[in-house]
Amino acid sequence: MIAEKMKGYVANSSVIRAMFEEGKKMAAIYGADQVYDFSLGNPNVPAPAAVKDAVYSILENEASVTVHGYMSNSGYEEVRLAVASSLNERFGTSFGEQNILMTVGAAGGLNVVCKTLLNPGDEVLAFAPFFGEYRSYVSNYDGVLKVVAPDTETFQPNLKLFETMIGQRTKAVIVNSPNNPSGVIYSEATIEKMAEILRRKEAEFGISIYLISDEPYRELAYDGAQVPYLTRYYHNTIVGYSFSKSLSLPGERIGYLVLPDELDDASDIQAAANVANRILGYVNAPSLFQKVIARCLNEKVDLDYYDRNRRALCDGLEKLGFSFIRPEGAFYLFMKSPEEDEVKFCEAARKYHILMVPGSSFSCPGYVRIAYCVSYETIINAMPGFEKLAQEYALKQ
Amino acid sequence: MIAEKMKGYVANSSVIRAMFEEGKKMAAIYGADQVYDFSLGNPNVPAPAAVKDAVYSILENEASVTVHGYMSNSGYEEVRLAVASSLNERFGTSFGEQNILMTVGAAGGLNVVCKTLLNPGDEVLAFAPFFGEYRSYVSNYDGVLKVVAPDTETFQPNLKLFETMIGQRTKAVIVNSPNNPSGVIYSEATIEKMAEILRRKEAEFGISIYLISDEPYRELAYDGAQVPYLTRYYHNTIVGYSFSKSLSLPGERIGYLVLPDELDDASDIQAAANVANRILGYVNAPSLFQKVIARCLNEKVDLDYYDRNRRALCDGLEKLGFSFIRPEGAFYLFMKSPEEDEVKFCEAARKYHILMVPGSSFSCPGYVRIAYCVSYETIINAMPGFEKLAQEYALKQ
Repeated sequence: MIAEKMKGYVANSSVIRAMFEEGKKMAAIYGADQVYDFSLGNPNVPAPAAVKDAVYSILENEASVTVHGYMSNSGYEEVRLAVASSLNERFGTSFGEQNILMTVGAAGGLNVVCKTLLNPGDEVLAFAPFFGEYRSYVSNYDGVLKVVAPDTETFQPNLKLFETMIGQRTKAVIVNSPNNPSGVIYSEATIEKMAEILRRKEAEFGISIYLISDEPYRELAYDGAQVPYLTRYYHNTIVGYSFSKSLSLPGERIGYLVLPDELDDASDIQAAANVANRILGYVNAPSLFQKVIARCLNEKVDLDYYDRNRRALCDGLEKLGFSFIRPEGAFYLFMKSPEEDEVKFCEAARKYHILMVPGSSFSCPGYVRIAYCVSYETIINAMPGFEKLAQEYALKQ
Repeated sequence: MIAEKMKGYVANSSVIRAMFEEGKKMAAIYGADQVYDFSLGNPNVPAPAAVKDAVYSILENEASVTVHGYMSNSGYEEVRLAVASSLNERFGTSFGEQNILMTVGAAGGLNVVCKTLLNPGDEVLAFAPFFGEYRSYVSNYDGVLKVVAPDTETFQPNLKLFETMIGQRTKAVIVNSPNNPSGVIYSEATIEKMAEILRRKEAEFGISIYLISDEPYRELAYDGAQVPYLTRYYHNTIVGYSFSKSLSLPGERIGYLVLPDELDDASDIQAAANVANRILGYVNAPSLFQKVIARCLNEKVDLDYYDRNRRALCDGLEKLGFSFIRPEGAFYLFMKSPEEDEVKFCEAARKYHILMVPGSSFSCPGYVRIAYCVSYETIINAMPGFEKLAQEYALKQ
């Protein structure tokens, strides 16, 4: 009796989430310290102390009916203003309150954008490898997600191919940098070239093409790497942000959209996004955590912890002969599978209680994603298992 | 450039929300105590002290990565179990963890249900007067909302008409009791008769018809009135609940769905609803507040406050000659407009800084909704304005 459309979603339900459930079951059987669950981007680093301080201070000093009440569907004015000011300071932008829409995480924000923009049949381009949920967010509104095949040399977007795939029905492009699952940061040269192509194609077809920048990993960049702020490169850019990773608050569902005045039809889009946020049933981003993040805009989680994990994992796997591009950001490592069918490789790893996600979930088969937002011990203790895997596949050591 | 479908939504955007925004503007101009804003169901009664205590206790005693982290998309197991047990105790049901899906408020829950059940063209029946947002929740998934005209004598559902409107494409019925906007509680006799009709029509057409019970006002019943628990009367009942009103937490977006094992295709529906909750971008209900409500299941806001408001408002308006049915629950009074076009009546009231919502927003023109979840003083101080209105309309006094 469920909707026809849902049958497909259920059948293709998230491999990542299925592994998360399996990881919990395995942990119950073998003990949590005997399972090396690299499947989910669920941060192991606690929220900064400032988060708890903010909660206490807000609950002590502000009225319950304000803290927990309804506000404008777009969010508290003072919160939106604080977010705008912080962006302006960091990136030299000039956003105001009207450009910020507080959302139920980035996933909520992306649904709002898709509902706001997409007519049935509209095309949205995404660069493989990409977060598989984009498929659902687009098809929720009967859009068509088109995959730009990966450049597996660099995992930068394949712009040559991209250019040939833009057409009359192209409504949007989703990018995600630092990238899930590759850990690659899209370079400024890449962004400039992408913007140039988009401007040219907008003129050629007489259409607007919106660049949707999904940025939950913006603050997770290592070795001082810079992550370009895309509204500065292309006028039709919409940013989706989340505090899930920067403040380790994924369960709290708090993020925002940036809807610049430079967008074509900016005021229509801002108004429609506000309505979409309401009628999709979010109504508003959770109220207490709106106020919390406004007080924590200069905070971030202990990046050194992830960086130590990254080094340990890269060094360990490299020594064992596995192939991958060293991640520059996020907390994922995207490793080449030693056999073509990476699903089989993931199954082989499960023998050693190692859980990884097949690259096909990111439209990039032949690779596996290892989420290293785990405890340092998990990485160290998983290494003997990885070593056995390397032996099994007769990798050079 | 916005989606065609969104243009309609924006054009018909919530009158209630527009008034909320206007109320804030008027308050800025005239002073908050000079504006009598009865437009929005935004509780003026603070959350019970137990809510703050629960937050503190959770943040002191549980790990940040657990409290603020991802869990199963359906919610924390212990929270779902606590909710199920509480329902079983109160209503003699026998729900387990698998029957509870934690949601982003009732609005999020209703979107999950509609996405789970509706194929394009499927019909959903709603009894006027009803919360206007149901229209959007249904049409988000290309369902067709059909309005059962009101019985304005009692504001109980018009079951005679209802029976004639059920057909092959009927997929669901939404009920809301205590009702927004009428304040009426659907009687046990009404529910029994409705269930009998539904069972008969299911057999007649060989279909499943789901009864969706939207229950944010369940705990707000006065004078000891009982609100029947609908899963006990009809097998295909899905309950949507929210803590927005019972604990004064509307901004926190916390609620749940009850998906009983007695539903036709129960396990498919439970699985699909879990996936819908994820892909619609909610991902999960806000994590800290899941844990908070689990500790506050026996708490509720100070009902005496609302009851005092109710009495003062009813007595005051009655004396002035206005017509209405005395509300038994929720915090709304649905008053007959002294002129046929209630929008004009609302405009007339605005002169006296009184904001009410036209009944046409609830598919019941000729009436206005007065939300009395305001301060007691607002009601008392609005009375001179209501008196002038009564004089203007030459009501008997």
